[in-house]
Amino acid sequence: MNTNEIRVFCPATIANISCGFDVLGVALASVGDEMVVRKVTEEGIRITKLEGQDLPMETLENVAGVAGLAFLEKSDYQGGFEIEIYKKIKAGSGIGSSAASSTGAVWGMNELLGKPFSTLQLIKFAMEGERLASGVAHADNVAPALFGGFTLVRSYDPLDVVTIHSPAELYATVIHPQIEIKTSDSRKILKTNITLQDGIKQWGNVGGLVAGLFKEDYDLIGRSLVDHIIEPVRSILIPGFDEVKAAAIEAGALGCGISGSGPSIFAFSKGPEIANKVAAAMKEVYEKIGLDYDIHVSKINIEGVREGR
Amino acid sequence: MNTNEIRVFCPATIANISCGFDVLGVALASVGDEMVVRKVTEEGIRITKLEGQDLPMETLENVAGVAGLAFLEKSDYQGGFEIEIYKKIKAGSGIGSSAASSTGAVWGMNELLGKPFSTLQLIKFAMEGERLASGVAHADNVAPALFGGFTLVRSYDPLDVVTIHSPAELYATVIHPQIEIKTSDSRKILKTNITLQDGIKQWGNVGGLVAGLFKEDYDLIGRSLVDHIIEPVRSILIPGFDEVKAAAIEAGALGCGISGSGPSIFAFSKGPEIANKVAAAMKEVYEKIGLDYDIHVSKINIEGVREGR
Repeated sequence: MNTNEIRVFCPATIANISCGFDVLGVALASVGDEMVVRKVTEEGIRITKLEGQDLPMETLENVAGVAGLAFLEKSDYQGGFEIEIYKKIKAGSGIGSSAASSTGAVWGMNELLGKPFSTLQLIKFAMEGERLASGVAHADNVAPALFGGFTLVRSYDPLDVVTIHSPAELYATVIHPQIEIKTSDSRKILKTNITLQDGIKQWGNVGGLVAGLFKEDYDLIGRSLVDHIIEPVRSILIPGFDEVKAAAIEAGALGCGISGSGPSIFAFSKGPEIANKVAAAMKEVYEKIGLDYDIHVSKINIEGVREGR
Repeated sequence: MNTNEIRVFCPATIANISCGFDVLGVALASVGDEMVVRKVTEEGIRITKLEGQDLPMETLENVAGVAGLAFLEKSDYQGGFEIEIYKKIKAGSGIGSSAASSTGAVWGMNELLGKPFSTLQLIKFAMEGERLASGVAHADNVAPALFGGFTLVRSYDPLDVVTIHSPAELYATVIHPQIEIKTSDSRKILKTNITLQDGIKQWGNVGGLVAGLFKEDYDLIGRSLVDHIIEPVRSILIPGFDEVKAAAIEAGALGCGISGSGPSIFAFSKGPEIANKVAAAMKEVYEKIGLDYDIHVSKINIEGVREGR
């Protein structure tokens, strides 16, 4: 085994889970990027291969490169790293494409150096990749990509990430209509103020969702997957959102919402059969509309980024 | 045993637990009202005794009376009830005095009739007592009074109450400075709008607090006991609030905040020793100020309202 090289699988993630805007995310088991991270004597980070997506390979323009540099800056290590990226997650899809690249890079580097950094520190490095991708160093995709399962970013100052229990039978269905929404645009349309009444509803649902996950109470999870604040504004940017959501619920989904800042739409279901039915129902909507899509049905990934493919 | 009569202990409760404004409450083990509920042939509700506090005994002006009438209205039972109330909780203290009376009454009535109503329905009846007391039919005190432990009112429409795990070593210290704040006044000073950024912090903390309770992670509970929205406004009405809070934290409390709409201030601690130290520190502040107070140190009550004294 070559201990100067590691192959990494880094999962796709759903952030902004309904009521959990900016705080709740979850990792997917069957969708993710593959990367190879290699220790080299030459200093710095070089992206030596990038397949699957048309993205910049220059270190300072690539999220893995920027995250890697943030890592090197805090590290005593004198050498550098080469990174090969095999993108399986489409950029701009809303399921943590940039987070997967950033996270996979810094996790692989940390493994090769004998784990000098804690997971929380790795999140901070990967957040620099997020800053490059969206202008905001958010943690709600990189946290579940690193830890696996559901995570809560309780606070940014100081950074405080909480792992949440993931019920064994929970499945995600994610449909990605082939349109482009920039994260920065979808941030712009949000209101700066909300009513206290909407706030109370939202934190009631966050409490309900977290409790539902710990209690493995699927009905409670479903009842809590409500977003009174962000979804009514952002869903306007996603063609067919209301129809897809209605079809998913009709097919048995526990709940349905915008994945990240869109345009992907996620649904959670109990068990793979319902998750597949939900997929069929969601697909039908976009087939009627005539819009291309990708679709994924996936278990929750509970281990996070790992060695392997 | 006289099955036409039941003696009831109904616990005091802390609502509006820091970040969990309007949604999170908890029941106390060693503070509560005692009541005797008696089945009689004469229709209606009569408060036949009321000791310990100067409160109205007329059925329509007494929270237990009003809650009892709401119960009778939905019941097939042809007779009535007499209620004796032995108040141990001071009215207006902010630890669920009205909720204890309302809840104890309807719980006792339900027991005597062979439990025709679910706990959720009893909450709805008791909420009518809350409406009389404060003008708002809130459920965040009656829910923990009935269920025990920590409860979350996820939604009012429809009413959805979630029980939350209570860590075994969690203790509450509650100090009640002898001043009067009307719930209606403390509602009036709240702002109608909040910033989205404050909302995100608040629901991050609600998620962290619920997760901390389920995980028995006392440090996480402490880090999450933060309120960016209500406490900064309402604490102005409570003399010495900042000093009491600082003293409680200094003495080892996990967190500290306003109980209900005040004026009581609660602190949570791990274990009775720290909870008692916190009590001493809180007392010292009011002794310096020269303000009278009551103080309680209590385990969390995990069974809720019960038969007995």
